[in-house]
Amino acid sequence: MSSQKKGKVFLVGAGPGDPGLLTLKAKALIEKADVIVYDYLANETFLSFARKDAELIYVGKSGGSHTMNQGDINKLLCEKGLKGLDVVRLKGGDPFIFGRGGEEAQELAKAGISFEVVPGVTSAIAVPAYAGIPLTHRDYTATVAFITGNEDPTKEQSNIDWEKISTGRR
Amino acid sequence: MSSQKKGKVFLVGAGPGDPGLLTLKAKALIEKADVIVYDYLANETFLSFARKDAELIYVGKSGGSHTMNQGDINKLLCEKGLKGLDVVRLKGGDPFIFGRGGEEAQELAKAGISFEVVPGVTSAIAVPAYAGIPLTHRDYTATVAFITGNEDPTKEQSNIDWEKISTGRR
Repeated sequence: MSSQKKGKVFLVGAGPGDPGLLTLKAKALIEKADVIVYDYLANETFLSFARKDAELIYVGKSGGSHTMNQGDINKLLCEKGLKGLDVVRLKGGDPFIFGRGGEEAQELAKAGISFEVVPGVTSAIAVPAYAGIPLTHRDYTATVAFITGNEDPTKEQSNIDWEKISTGRR
Repeated sequence: MSSQKKGKVFLVGAGPGDPGLLTLKAKALIEKADVIVYDYLANETFLSFARKDAELIYVGKSGGSHTMNQGDINKLLCEKGLKGLDVVRLKGGDPFIFGRGGEEAQELAKAGISFEVVPGVTSAIAVPAYAGIPLTHRDYTATVAFITGNEDPTKEQSNIDWEKISTGRR
C-alpha cells in the first residue's frame, strides 16, 4: 500500500479578466496550489494570490502562436497530478465554454487522476454586460447562442449551420 | 445645490448557489451595501456577508408564486436608489441570462439612477459542469444555445423556433 499523497487537478475558470470576477473558490484554490498552469487570458493579478513557492507554468497562446500545444498541456497536467501535486489549471472565462476543459478532463480521467471543474464567469456573457447589453430580455429574446470563432482547423468543413442559428427566433 | 449622497444600484449575479462560486466583487458589494434585495435562488449563506444593519428584502419567487411582481421590484430598486442608498440586487446565476436584469437596468436608467451590472457564474453552464458535462467540446460541438423554460406568459405565441435551434449543428 502506498502512502503517497494523491494529487488533484482543478480546472478553474478565471472569468473575463476583471480580478473582481474571480470566484471565492478559484481564489482559495490558487492560494493553496502546488502548481498553476495558466493561459494568456487570465489576468496576471490572479497569480499574486499564489504561494511564494508555487510553480507557475505559462502555457498560453496569443493570436495563433502557441507556447505549448493542447496534447502537451494534457500531458503536463497528468504528469503533475501523478506526482501527487495539487494543480490549478487556470483558464480565462469558463473552462467548459470553448476552453477545451472537456479535453483536459478526458485525459485526466483516462490517467486515473482526480479532478474537479470550477466554473467561472464566461466572457461571452460578461463582456456584453460590461457594454450594457443583456443577452436575454423578456420582451425581445428567449434564447441565446454562443458560437466559437475558432473551430478545430483540422475539420474538413464547419459544422455550424449559420442559417439556422441566425434565424432561431421567429 | 444638493449635498445628498448619490446612491447606486448593483445588479449582482450570485452564481448557481455554491457559496464558493460567488465572485470577489459580489462579496465586497454585499459587505458594504445599505440594502440587499434578493431572490429565492441566491443561497442564504451569501447574506451572512451583509452588514448587521443592512436592510434585507426578499422578493423571490418559487414555482409561480411571487412575493413581489417585477414592476414592484423595479419600483423598490428606484425608490432605494433615489434615497441615496447603495443597493445590491442579488440574483441567482447571472443577472442578464434569463434574470430580468435588463428590465431592471432600463427602469433605473429611466429614473436617472446610476447602476452597475456585476456578472455571475451562470447556472446554465455551472450545473452541467458539476454533472461532468462540458457544454462545448472541440470534437463535438462549436456552438451552445440557452433557451428559457419560462417565456413571458402574456405572449400570444412562443418566439422560439425549436426546429431551427435543435438542428443548428450540421
